[in-house]
Amino acid sequence: MTIIDEIKNRSVPVDKAIDSLLPVKEPVGLYEASRHIVKAGGKRLRPAVLLAAAEAVGGNPKKAVPAAVAVELMHTFTLVHDDIMDNDPVRRGLPAVHTLWGEAGGILAGDTLYSKSIEIITESDSDPKSLLKSANILSKTCVLVCEGQWLDIDFEKRETVSKEEYLDMIEKKTAVLFGAAAQIGAVLGGADEKTAQALYDFGRLTGLGFQIYDDVLDLITPSEILGKRQGSDIVEGKRTLLMIHALEHGVSPKAFGKGDATPAEIEDAIRVLTASGSLDYVKTLAVSLVEDGKSKLKILPDSKAKQILSDIADYMLYRNY
Amino acid sequence: MTIIDEIKNRSVPVDKAIDSLLPVKEPVGLYEASRHIVKAGGKRLRPAVLLAAAEAVGGNPKKAVPAAVAVELMHTFTLVHDDIMDNDPVRRGLPAVHTLWGEAGGILAGDTLYSKSIEIITESDSDPKSLLKSANILSKTCVLVCEGQWLDIDFEKRETVSKEEYLDMIEKKTAVLFGAAAQIGAVLGGADEKTAQALYDFGRLTGLGFQIYDDVLDLITPSEILGKRQGSDIVEGKRTLLMIHALEHGVSPKAFGKGDATPAEIEDAIRVLTASGSLDYVKTLAVSLVEDGKSKLKILPDSKAKQILSDIADYMLYRNY
Repeated sequence: MTIIDEIKNRSVPVDKAIDSLLPVKEPVGLYEASRHIVKAGGKRLRPAVLLAAAEAVGGNPKKAVPAAVAVELMHTFTLVHDDIMDNDPVRRGLPAVHTLWGEAGGILAGDTLYSKSIEIITESDSDPKSLLKSANILSKTCVLVCEGQWLDIDFEKRETVSKEEYLDMIEKKTAVLFGAAAQIGAVLGGADEKTAQALYDFGRLTGLGFQIYDDVLDLITPSEILGKRQGSDIVEGKRTLLMIHALEHGVSPKAFGKGDATPAEIEDAIRVLTASGSLDYVKTLAVSLVEDGKSKLKILPDSKAKQILSDIADYMLYRNY
Repeated sequence: MTIIDEIKNRSVPVDKAIDSLLPVKEPVGLYEASRHIVKAGGKRLRPAVLLAAAEAVGGNPKKAVPAAVAVELMHTFTLVHDDIMDNDPVRRGLPAVHTLWGEAGGILAGDTLYSKSIEIITESDSDPKSLLKSANILSKTCVLVCEGQWLDIDFEKRETVSKEEYLDMIEKKTAVLFGAAAQIGAVLGGADEKTAQALYDFGRLTGLGFQIYDDVLDLITPSEILGKRQGSDIVEGKRTLLMIHALEHGVSPKAFGKGDATPAEIEDAIRVLTASGSLDYVKTLAVSLVEDGKSKLKILPDSKAKQILSDIADYMLYRNY
């Protein structure tokens, strides 16, 4: 079975549980808005990490399914609110929640997803101490995600952002939720504190690699595979790590910030960012973070689930969108 | 000591704990935005209910202070997001969060307040089972608050709203958080399930009376005491229970929906709504709900804290703003 199959297999009970734990009820509009992006797909990477972590520490992954749902709803909540803040009309190939239900609808759908996330994790079937710890991890993580999004918005108004500042921002905005997923899986699987912390670091470091590598994929992946315009970050003038490195080296491709850049100009950007060493810098950093993350798995006894965690980490880089 | 003093006394440790549990840290803007409305005052009624409930069931209210903070932050989070949705530029006499930090700032400050609320309650010092139950109550309540706000927005677009629909909406939007405050106090104070449920009903019913009576206060209280324009609900054309009753009886004061209504027209509205029996209907209902709520306290042994809960319930009606 390929790692994609392993991830998909884990998404089946999660999707089923989403349907039963977040049913459409009155007021129907609120629940339709809340389910819109959750039901629109997504790879369910975070649930897969959580379930594999629970299994890898010797727990029963079935008991961790509600927690996996909670993490996915939390992730979706941040997407729904981010789309309002970033004025982004599309998500997962569909109109964003606020596009269909207005801004108030988007705010309330996000708030509902968050509330359901905590409700679900606090009433799932596990010992109270582990569930309490899991709810605590989830809420602490969400504070960091808010900090990350605040910094992201702040950086857009600034002239320069250093590599360190950028990495701090994406660690908070993206990586910590992967960390939380792995840690909660470990906690609910019965791991000791040291193991749960190692799993957190595994998720955080590979999540960081995942996000950094996203910048590369955005530039080098053809539109038909990417599901959005190739090089969209570059043409929108986003200062990703790739561009921060390039700008620090006095390099700025013509396509940067040029909304109507041609495919040839995207090709030129790839050439220019290769020549400046920026693409290599970002790829190398992403690979080394994922390797660092994988090294945290040493604390676990060998098992199929441990191998799956390691393969998910690799998949974060070798996926093609 | 008056009931106002009792409420104020309980706000002292809560305000102190807010400062230590929600400190200003990096990114400073996010935390300043998050603290803005919490620090701008408010009567801390919900924390007072929570602490008195903990004491009334024989618990140590000091141990419940973090939970009281959690409930207040949850309440504030709903205010911050509501102000964005309702496009309301002022809160507690200050510019609303989104007025000062923009809409994205308001969304993120609200999300942070919610996250901190759950973080604080899940790491406070009590037995894990009670804390887990408390976090569950808080998140379930928040789902209901979202439903209530959704209905409120929906009602504004509708031609008619029945009294039952209106009462269902304000129960969800306002009353259940009073219920949650009393129930969490009871749970953390060590009450059995039946007692905790009675306390929930106490909070819910008195909270309902509180919200209904608010419509009366809005109309009959002079602006200088109310802190906002006398009769603002009426002149804004809000269909409160008072106006639903009046409209059902074919009565509509001239000031209704008339933004520039004169003080004389407000006086006329009071006369008209008195003659139609609408003011009496609302007052009587509010009083009977508060009495129903107080009757739930019978389950408790007599104590000073029980008396304070009863006095807070009365204060919900006899406060003058």
